[in-house]
Amino acid sequence: MHIELICFGSELLWDKINTNVQIIAEHLLSIGYSLTRVTTVGDDQKEVEASLKEALKRSQIVLTCGGLGPTFDDLTREAVSKVLNKTLLYSKEILKKIEQSFQSVGIPMPEENNRQAYLIQGAKVLLNKVGTAPGQIIGLKNKHLILLPGPPKELSPMMEEEVLPFLRKKVPSFFIETCVLHIFGRPESEIDEKIKPVVEKKWNKSGLKVIFGILAHHSVVDVKVMVEGKNKKAVKKSVLEIEKEFYKILGNDIYGKNKETLESVIGRLLKKKEQTLAVAESCTGGFIANKITDIAGSSAYFKQGVVTYTDESKIKSLGVNQETLKNFGAVSEQTAKEMAKGILKRSNSDWGIAVTGIAGPTGDTKLKPVGMVSFGIASKNDSLTYTKIFHGTRLEIKEKSALMVLELLRKQLLK
Amino acid sequence: MHIELICFGSELLWDKINTNVQIIAEHLLSIGYSLTRVTTVGDDQKEVEASLKEALKRSQIVLTCGGLGPTFDDLTREAVSKVLNKTLLYSKEILKKIEQSFQSVGIPMPEENNRQAYLIQGAKVLLNKVGTAPGQIIGLKNKHLILLPGPPKELSPMMEEEVLPFLRKKVPSFFIETCVLHIFGRPESEIDEKIKPVVEKKWNKSGLKVIFGILAHHSVVDVKVMVEGKNKKAVKKSVLEIEKEFYKILGNDIYGKNKETLESVIGRLLKKKEQTLAVAESCTGGFIANKITDIAGSSAYFKQGVVTYTDESKIKSLGVNQETLKNFGAVSEQTAKEMAKGILKRSNSDWGIAVTGIAGPTGDTKLKPVGMVSFGIASKNDSLTYTKIFHGTRLEIKEKSALMVLELLRKQLLK
Repeated sequence: MHIELICFGSELLWDKINTNVQIIAEHLLSIGYSLTRVTTVGDDQKEVEASLKEALKRSQIVLTCGGLGPTFDDLTREAVSKVLNKTLLYSKEILKKIEQSFQSVGIPMPEENNRQAYLIQGAKVLLNKVGTAPGQIIGLKNKHLILLPGPPKELSPMMEEEVLPFLRKKVPSFFIETCVLHIFGRPESEIDEKIKPVVEKKWNKSGLKVIFGILAHHSVVDVKVMVEGKNKKAVKKSVLEIEKEFYKILGNDIYGKNKETLESVIGRLLKKKEQTLAVAESCTGGFIANKITDIAGSSAYFKQGVVTYTDESKIKSLGVNQETLKNFGAVSEQTAKEMAKGILKRSNSDWGIAVTGIAGPTGDTKLKPVGMVSFGIASKNDSLTYTKIFHGTRLEIKEKSALMVLELLRKQLLK
Repeated sequence: MHIELICFGSELLWDKINTNVQIIAEHLLSIGYSLTRVTTVGDDQKEVEASLKEALKRSQIVLTCGGLGPTFDDLTREAVSKVLNKTLLYSKEILKKIEQSFQSVGIPMPEENNRQAYLIQGAKVLLNKVGTAPGQIIGLKNKHLILLPGPPKELSPMMEEEVLPFLRKKVPSFFIETCVLHIFGRPESEIDEKIKPVVEKKWNKSGLKVIFGILAHHSVVDVKVMVEGKNKKAVKKSVLEIEKEFYKILGNDIYGKNKETLESVIGRLLKKKEQTLAVAESCTGGFIANKITDIAGSSAYFKQGVVTYTDESKIKSLGVNQETLKNFGAVSEQTAKEMAKGILKRSNSDWGIAVTGIAGPTGDTKLKPVGMVSFGIASKNDSLTYTKIFHGTRLEIKEKSALMVLELLRKQLLK
């Protein structure tokens, strides 16, 4: 089954990062579908029409997102009407719903929003709970064209509550199961060589299709497997078997799987141990605290963070010794250790972690290059320090340093 | 001129967000080119080949990214060879460079990387300073196919240093100039109606093509204009004129333009005033400090941040009154004010800003819903507070709250 997605919006060819592909892909995967292709075109009538025509030739299901808004550059309705040679009908019922959604927030409906009340002849309306533009499903001979709004928060519930139930009725008799394992701080080619025996095994037996993938981003390597087959049980069993083999080879270097992140895994470990954490940051500037507090429920184990960007604040807020700063500098294992111990003590937590380094682009010295970062991990009876030189931009160094200290903490929590 | 991009990689149809489009678009724009279309396909030989064939039919310049790595799922070289019916040649010269890049980090070259030494017959080699896979430019009749690596940090310097100088020689005699203005906290349709008189003016005179756009994401509305024409001076003048008209209508509600962000604008204003800032965060959990320290040179004005996730830490680290917490709760303007004043005093800064709220998904009470957030801004002689209820996920509420307090600070800094 070919399913493709067309994203409309000039901003997507310009400066706006497209996050809709992942939202749609994830929903589709939950019912055993995957995207074959994604096309992005700007708000240009000719391109919009051409991309629709081509996609409808290639695929059984064509999803589009964007171009259903109320403004002058929203072209999807008109283009679909022209390509399919179907009339646009003005729906008073839809207009009423749009008016109601404005009323509920106490704003009169701007005239522009009238444009959103037009429906392709014969289309099934998809309710938009969050925004004003309804989605539409247009049935064609053996094909379906599904029009969705562009904003992720409108798109996601519409996929889940309207599109998936519709598609589920058409799910073919095969199942897809996937597994992604995450490893921090190892080179991609090293992992590639290690997992080769698993990848090269004959998995494609008894009607199963097994696809492996490996991907490095920043300091993380993802090892992926996707199994497709008609027998749900066999598919699940096969994924589990492969996962086990990967764990046998990579062991504790795998920090998490699927949607797990270093911060979510650390949260899980801390909760299990009923322990708490506090963070002292210099060069990461709040990145670590922000990551940790992205996790719902983190208030159960995260007590406090400080971002000490000056020597003065390192002394005053963390009790770092002035002599330490003078003798070893702010970027040193000695300072990192005192920062970790300082936040541990002041927050009365079970774990204190600290990062101090040079994120750049300036700030380097003869002895300490941009990217040099020292880490400290302190618990009530113990502490450790570590130093590493990272390469990359300021933001990359911030991120890599944050992940590094979380990985160091994870390994301690596993002991 | 039609330019299109094909992105190869199953992960892009799955769970990996594609950031390469923006990198390439930005580089192209700097020499007056823009992308007409982007296609994404997985690591599937048939799809890779089909997408190459189709793009080469439609466009004069086809860029691809991804699929040049050393692992089993990197298919670009082989697919191009097949589609163009051109031989793949093994280049000892390239192999040497790959070996050297491994030597420089003290690792022996894994055998897999041999695959990266293959070149399409007749291709121009594009140096990869950061990674191992070289890019390639293949000249065809009136067309060019440009193969680039997938990792952004390899792609970006290769675009700048190798591809742009090549394309610049082919720049047609027209110029593109763009301007994007950012507004925080206003509804998209309100901005749309306000700018209508500008958008509807007859700008398309004397060979100029003017395109307007408007886009809302989270609490920010972007108003965009792109002008294209043969006369560079006329293009620039026209963009400036339109920009001026937007400023006349929207004034100080425009917080920045183009790449400016709230945090970069605040940094500029603080530097100009030679003032400093410290941040006290509860529900934003480090988001604000992280944003502020994303800016290179922020150590000149950012002194300190604290993330006080517990009442205890609000009292101990910020001097919030126990009575205030008891009488009004942690999420209240009273607490926000004391947090702002506390961080101001303890860090000895010119400005202290504070955020305390309920990011959810739990933690709400009868009187205080998820999304309720209080803000405090303190300077040496003054303070203000504000409360707002945001909608969205935990991460959206964190982000909107962070932007809100930065906007409140910006308006104060403009006074």
